Amino acid sequence: MGGKYVFFFGGGSADGKAEMKNLLGGKGANLAEMTNLNVPVPAGFTISTEVCTYFYEHDGSYPAGLREQVEGSIRKIESEMEAKFGDPSNPLLLSIRSGARVSMPGMMDTVLNLGLNERTVAGLAGKSGDERFAYDCYRRFIQMYGDVVLGMKPETKDDIDPFEEILARKKEEIGAEDDIDLGVEDLKDLAGRFRRMIEERTGGDFPDDPMEQLWCSVGAVFNSWNNERAIIYRKLNGIPDGWGTAVNVQSMVFGNLGEDSGTGVAFTRNPATGENVFYGEYLMKAQGEDVVAGIRTPQPINIEQKGTRDLPSLEEEMGDIYRQIEDIRARLEKHYHDMQDLEFTIQNGRLWILQTRSGKRTGFAAIRIAIDMVREGYITKEEALGRLEPEQLNQFLRPVFDPEKKNRAIDEGRLLAKGINAGPGAATGRIVFNAVDAEEWAARGEDVILVRIETSPEDIRGMSAAAGILTSAGGATSHAALVARQMGKVCVVGAKDINIDYRKRTLEVDGRTVSEGDFISIDGMTGEVIEGKIHTSPSEVLSVLIDATMDGNQSSIYRDFEELMSWANEIRTLGVRANADRPDQARIAVSFGAEGIGLCRTEHMFFEGTRIDAVREMILASDRVGREAALAKLLPMQREDFRGIFEAMGSRPVTVRTLDPPLHEFLPHEDSEIEDLACKMGVPKEKLEEKIQSLKEANPMLGHRGCRLGIVYPEITEMQVRAIFEAACELVKQGQSPEPEVMIPLVGHVRELQLQEEVVRRVAGEVQREQGVQVDYLVGTMIEIPRAALTAEEIASVAEFFSFGTNDLTQTTFGLSRDDAGKFLGDYIDKGIWPGDPFQKLDRKGVGSLIRIGVERGRKKRPDLKIGICGEHGGEPSSIEFCHEAGLDYVSCSPYRIPIAILAAAQASLKAAEEV
Amino acid sequence: MGGKYVFFFGGGSADGKAEMKNLLGGKGANLAEMTNLNVPVPAGFTISTEVCTYFYEHDGSYPAGLREQVEGSIRKIESEMEAKFGDPSNPLLLSIRSGARVSMPGMMDTVLNLGLNERTVAGLAGKSGDERFAYDCYRRFIQMYGDVVLGMKPETKDDIDPFEEILARKKEEIGAEDDIDLGVEDLKDLAGRFRRMIEERTGGDFPDDPMEQLWCSVGAVFNSWNNERAIIYRKLNGIPDGWGTAVNVQSMVFGNLGEDSGTGVAFTRNPATGENVFYGEYLMKAQGEDVVAGIRTPQPINIEQKGTRDLPSLEEEMGDIYRQIEDIRARLEKHYHDMQDLEFTIQNGRLWILQTRSGKRTGFAAIRIAIDMVREGYITKEEALGRLEPEQLNQFLRPVFDPEKKNRAIDEGRLLAKGINAGPGAATGRIVFNAVDAEEWAARGEDVILVRIETSPEDIRGMSAAAGILTSAGGATSHAALVARQMGKVCVVGAKDINIDYRKRTLEVDGRTVSEGDFISIDGMTGEVIEGKIHTSPSEVLSVLIDATMDGNQSSIYRDFEELMSWANEIRTLGVRANADRPDQARIAVSFGAEGIGLCRTEHMFFEGTRIDAVREMILASDRVGREAALAKLLPMQREDFRGIFEAMGSRPVTVRTLDPPLHEFLPHEDSEIEDLACKMGVPKEKLEEKIQSLKEANPMLGHRGCRLGIVYPEITEMQVRAIFEAACELVKQGQSPEPEVMIPLVGHVRELQLQEEVVRRVAGEVQREQGVQVDYLVGTMIEIPRAALTAEEIASVAEFFSFGTNDLTQTTFGLSRDDAGKFLGDYIDKGIWPGDPFQKLDRKGVGSLIRIGVERGRKKRPDLKIGICGEHGGEPSSIEFCHEAGLDYVSCSPYRIPIAILAAAQASLKAAEEV
Repeated sequence: MGGKYVFFFGGGSADGKAEMKNLLGGKGANLAEMTNLNVPVPAGFTISTEVCTYFYEHDGSYPAGLREQVEGSIRKIESEMEAKFGDPSNPLLLSIRSGARVSMPGMMDTVLNLGLNERTVAGLAGKSGDERFAYDCYRRFIQMYGDVVLGMKPETKDDIDPFEEILARKKEEIGAEDDIDLGVEDLKDLAGRFRRMIEERTGGDFPDDPMEQLWCSVGAVFNSWNNERAIIYRKLNGIPDGWGTAVNVQSMVFGNLGEDSGTGVAFTRNPATGENVFYGEYLMKAQGEDVVAGIRTPQPINIEQKGTRDLPSLEEEMGDIYRQIEDIRARLEKHYHDMQDLEFTIQNGRLWILQTRSGKRTGFAAIRIAIDMVREGYITKEEALGRLEPEQLNQFLRPVFDPEKKNRAIDEGRLLAKGINAGPGAATGRIVFNAVDAEEWAARGEDVILVRIETSPEDIRGMSAAAGILTSAGGATSHAALVARQMGKVCVVGAKDINIDYRKRTLEVDGRTVSEGDFISIDGMTGEVIEGKIHTSPSEVLSVLIDATMDGNQSSIYRDFEELMSWANEIRTLGVRANADRPDQARIAVSFGAEGIGLCRTEHMFFEGTRIDAVREMILASDRVGREAALAKLLPMQREDFRGIFEAMGSRPVTVRTLDPPLHEFLPHEDSEIEDLACKMGVPKEKLEEKIQSLKEANPMLGHRGCRLGIVYPEITEMQVRAIFEAACELVKQGQSPEPEVMIPLVGHVRELQLQEEVVRRVAGEVQREQGVQVDYLVGTMIEIPRAALTAEEIASVAEFFSFGTNDLTQTTFGLSRDDAGKFLGDYIDKGIWPGDPFQKLDRKGVGSLIRIGVERGRKKRPDLKIGICGEHGGEPSSIEFCHEAGLDYVSCSPYRIPIAILAAAQASLKAAEEV
Repeated sequence: MGGKYVFFFGGGSADGKAEMKNLLGGKGANLAEMTNLNVPVPAGFTISTEVCTYFYEHDGSYPAGLREQVEGSIRKIESEMEAKFGDPSNPLLLSIRSGARVSMPGMMDTVLNLGLNERTVAGLAGKSGDERFAYDCYRRFIQMYGDVVLGMKPETKDDIDPFEEILARKKEEIGAEDDIDLGVEDLKDLAGRFRRMIEERTGGDFPDDPMEQLWCSVGAVFNSWNNERAIIYRKLNGIPDGWGTAVNVQSMVFGNLGEDSGTGVAFTRNPATGENVFYGEYLMKAQGEDVVAGIRTPQPINIEQKGTRDLPSLEEEMGDIYRQIEDIRARLEKHYHDMQDLEFTIQNGRLWILQTRSGKRTGFAAIRIAIDMVREGYITKEEALGRLEPEQLNQFLRPVFDPEKKNRAIDEGRLLAKGINAGPGAATGRIVFNAVDAEEWAARGEDVILVRIETSPEDIRGMSAAAGILTSAGGATSHAALVARQMGKVCVVGAKDINIDYRKRTLEVDGRTVSEGDFISIDGMTGEVIEGKIHTSPSEVLSVLIDATMDGNQSSIYRDFEELMSWANEIRTLGVRANADRPDQARIAVSFGAEGIGLCRTEHMFFEGTRIDAVREMILASDRVGREAALAKLLPMQREDFRGIFEAMGSRPVTVRTLDPPLHEFLPHEDSEIEDLACKMGVPKEKLEEKIQSLKEANPMLGHRGCRLGIVYPEITEMQVRAIFEAACELVKQGQSPEPEVMIPLVGHVRELQLQEEVVRRVAGEVQREQGVQVDYLVGTMIEIPRAALTAEEIASVAEFFSFGTNDLTQTTFGLSRDDAGKFLGDYIDKGIWPGDPFQKLDRKGVGSLIRIGVERGRKKRPDLKIGICGEHGGEPSSIEFCHEAGLDYVSCSPYRIPIAILAAAQASLKAAEEV
């Protein structure tokens, strides 16, 4: 080994560049890139990752030639920065920072203000004209160096940091409340006490030689690559141990050196709205953290941004510097083709840029910027699509809290709890504790938040009536979350600090009690639960698309959204359908661009109105005749449902799943309800209880449900198929062309499908003959238990389509009940067993492997097999990417997630094209 | 096409032979084979299956040349049988029967007595000297021909058969009770009425031409290949539709023609005991069905068999005929190398053999015969092993009812119900309805049968104390069945006609009530439940192997068993281990030949004695400290268990599974028990109830269990590992070499296994250092959820062995809870969806496919990965065959199934060798 280990940057040119991340680390490569762009970066150099590798392979020693290269680079820094390392009158101070290929924030060590000693500190004082500043830097340096390089940690677990201990004692001695109360002499004394403590513990002198300080710090940073924290972080994030880190040595600049010094942060465009205006804040005589700390109010960067604020802007105070930054802004955007977030420091009237990176932004801003940059010619449509986060589209669809008002409420201490953000948007309303109240209160015009420990299918009408749903139990795929997403309802689930007392009609958090009728606000984007009212407003996109209360042309937000969707639709090849059970949901789905319904759950209709009575009559019937009588009552209602859905969907395909849940889900479980039902049905309560008992199951998820119902009770399938085809025939007669796809759930054996297919084709034939018209239809199945995927070849001999039901497929593949997983899910994620909740993000290695087997074996038998997915994963971007890779024809998701799915599908196409 | 379609047999030579089954069907080939052996078979011919194929491909017509070949063959029959087809004075009568490659009993059509008409019937009367016989044949022929050939079926579903209707009317007219009361004139009249009905319905004459009758019957038999019954049968049994059937035309012989005619059945050896003695029964002046109908008492075939019976034997009555049969017996055994079951008819002093086939036999007989035939040089050891049914070995191990006494009890109407035969053997005892009573009654010397709706782990001690277990719910893999098989306990489960009333302490069937303390007998081989006492006796094999109450040399049954096992052990390559949780079970396993323990369920020990208190204390502890205190109490008990098991197993490997079931299984659920426990633990009852409630799960099978417990509570795993290694170290110090294999259950992700492996290796290391000795051990996992099989490559990077837990793997692969499957299992089997209970016989296509994936992916990572199976399937022969094919190293099953597994493993080796 031999060659170049050290890469200098400064004075408008650098040895490295952005592409050299592997060698220079991310930070080093970016500093080099900025320098080459002629951005004024404080000079410095990067010691490459190869040295780190060498360091570990050679027992902590360095390759020959490194020392000379480092010393040479220091001389270049000195010349560039007009200061000298170790010079007592004009000292150059350095920072030593780690920098791996990918950012590992906070995992490795840093030393600042390096180069200070008893002599140079006096030089710094003279140069800056601020003795206090100089000695504060000095005592901070000793503290940091002592900690990072010399290992001055607490001696036992129960001890506090030794430096903090000395500092606290000193403050006590002089009666100081805050660090700022310490004078120059106090800081000098502190520096001395720090040094003595270190010398006592190490038994040697504190190093005053700047070069010794430098080499020891470099070694400490390399060593920190293998501290426990960093090792765990790499394990969790799949970063190879062999990569190593680079070390960046850079001259220090200070924004707090005098009246002509300052510091600030700026975004090249507005990160909240995306407007193409320069946006930033600064403070004079301050260090970086002061701008964001909120103790002093920062000033606006330019006049445009002043608004009504009576604060001078940088543009006014230091016009020359402002124009320099503005010029840099333009260069950075032109170079990086993205909105940048930059940090700058002005030291004695000279501008330095410390960092630039892609800026974080809201969903609105992300899309606005992407679209503008396409128009400006910076990026292609494909690039614009590629860099968006699909989930950000949620922000276009949900009502929102005014951020200022929400923050104020939190500042006032009104934050009650944080749960899982399950249904995006914001909702405010009065608390009710049960579904019946939710309906009643809503009927009289109240906005209500339905608060439950958890919800069940019986609560659906109440959930529909509520402005928002809050549960204290359950996870992101609990019943509440699932229904909320489908309804587009604001929802926070699993807010486990909240104790609900149904009897008292109160909720209680940490001794604070909130009662029925009190106002509460929930933010489904963040999971926050806040006491009291916060004002919300509906999203513009919804106002155009669904409410039709607004003309799309009036809304630039809507136009942006529309444009983006059109680009995504051009590029994607994966179809996007909706999971929708009702005509209104179907209409919403179509306005969002759904190309069909991928899952219509017929049983969701069973809870509406008085239908549940007929359903229960059917379940409680003692023979087929009794069941058929009850089913006959359901037939016209189901037919009407299907007619509405087919009408809304036009000639788009509609996948209707036959009855799926176990029958006991439709029966009451509470004593009073059982009594009511017994009375209504005219049977003794004991008999009803007996029946309910006999339907109980040890593991209902693995019990008598899905096609197992239709096989034991074919009359149920017959009624549902009749309803589907009577509705379809009616529409055909009206000149429409509905396309039903009948889907049999929970098939595990081809013979199950065969038996149900026979029923479907027989009844479909009967109805078509009776009605004298023809309907195009398909018969297919859900692939939701492993055996179905494994025997897909057999099953495809009957099924004309597959739809992967990944909710149940995840449950069975993991052997994991999602109702029970909550008890250990937290432990599992903490311990790094699962990267996240497998019910949210599709598990590619396990469930994905089964899906691939299913696709391959299914298409082997029937090459033109239509394949989709209708589990919750169908609306989750990384899962959608997998579906594209696995060769599925479409994904199906809840109506409100369709824009997200469309964008994710387009991104999947782009990614696949890139990889080819 | 052209050539030979008709294959004659008769007079000591035949055109066909046994190997020509594909062409002649099974029956035709066998008739030819017997003829070639010079066995006196009534002459006839077979029309080949090729004609059937031609018939279906050519719209019901026949190939050229068939007619001539048939006519030629009839002339040969006439000459052989000394009668003439259609001759008015000496008519030849024929039977027309189907015969496919494999037997499809009762599925296709048959016509008997063909060739009769108004003239030949008179000839038959004269020839036989029995006019009634002749006209009875004639009216039967018209009836059969009318039904099969002319399609005279009931006209509507509600009608009865038209012939039966005429017959009933006739009997009414003459006041006859039985067919036998009809005189010659009545029969003549009946024949006339049958003909008129046919002629009215067909509008044509009844065919009197024997050749016309023949051709129409042949066509009818070919057509019956495609009747609905036959099609369904073929579908269910996987028989290709294209095979077609042959048609056998054979001369009729009659055992009821006069004093020198008769009929009988015989076995070449005793089918009950296997003794090499000729065994059979016959009746003079009788037809085949009379021998088995039980109206007349059949006579013994020879003097040896007469015993105390005062009936003349064939040997005495017709010595010459008897010697002919005895000679044929020898020839058949010599030829077929197996015990034969043959049917014979004597017509006017001449012997005819109608059929020979391999005879059904008991398990005892099967083994005795196989072993004798090896000794006699008829067959090789491999052939002997190959032809046994492994399940028959059960008969060697179980106590048995005296068959005569049982049959008498049934005749007396004491059969209460029939359930699923879950634990082979026979048991008689007094009824108790709970486990505590079972223990108490047994302690005072009563034989008891524990009768429960279903059992749970809490019942284990009571089950162990009972002579037999009977449940009214649950299936063949229910808790009761599983534990019973493992304990070698007689058990009948799912006797669903029985209604149990725990409060009244009675069981009731169809209005009959039996109470606590009453005697009941259950037959675990047949599932029969019989009221009252029936005497049982223990099996000889058990008396030698386990009770050691008998010397093996004294028992020929034991010697046979031992010899057979030694042959099987020579041949098999698949290892056989036992599932055993206790030292006594381990000892039994070793005496049966187990090579290790494949599954030791540590939690089964948790219910013994006062341990459950410590277990409950552990579960109810509010923190780790509390749990550790309770676990410390369990440690010495578990250590003692393991010491006993390791001692019993010597240097054989012992796979110990760490805690698996969800914790709530260890807590009480009934109010009074909860109260007791609360009192014992010194906590308020409400608090205990709350805890029990909080541990409840929606789907416990998919809940917080398996390694998920050890991950959340590593201290449980630590205690168990410590117990294992302290026990192992103790034995090492005593000079033994235990081989523990620690098995982590329910792993779905490699990281779960990693975390638990770390605990195992750490604690194992600690204990070995403490004890100063070394223990060889492995760490591995169960593969029991699909994700584990799918990601086997990752998992094998940590696991040193896999053990397929096919009980849970079947549940998750099918999405099927075995506790709930009972509700539709019956429907599923009736409808031909599943060939049987997938928890009994491994599902090769689904679960098997996953096993193959697991084996392949696991060995890809770790070629020497040790792989076994420890689900219930490990003791089921066809599943064992699959395990051999899939390349597993061993199967593990309950101790009492080890002989079965050994034989099945040997058969799997033989079958694989054959296929190569």
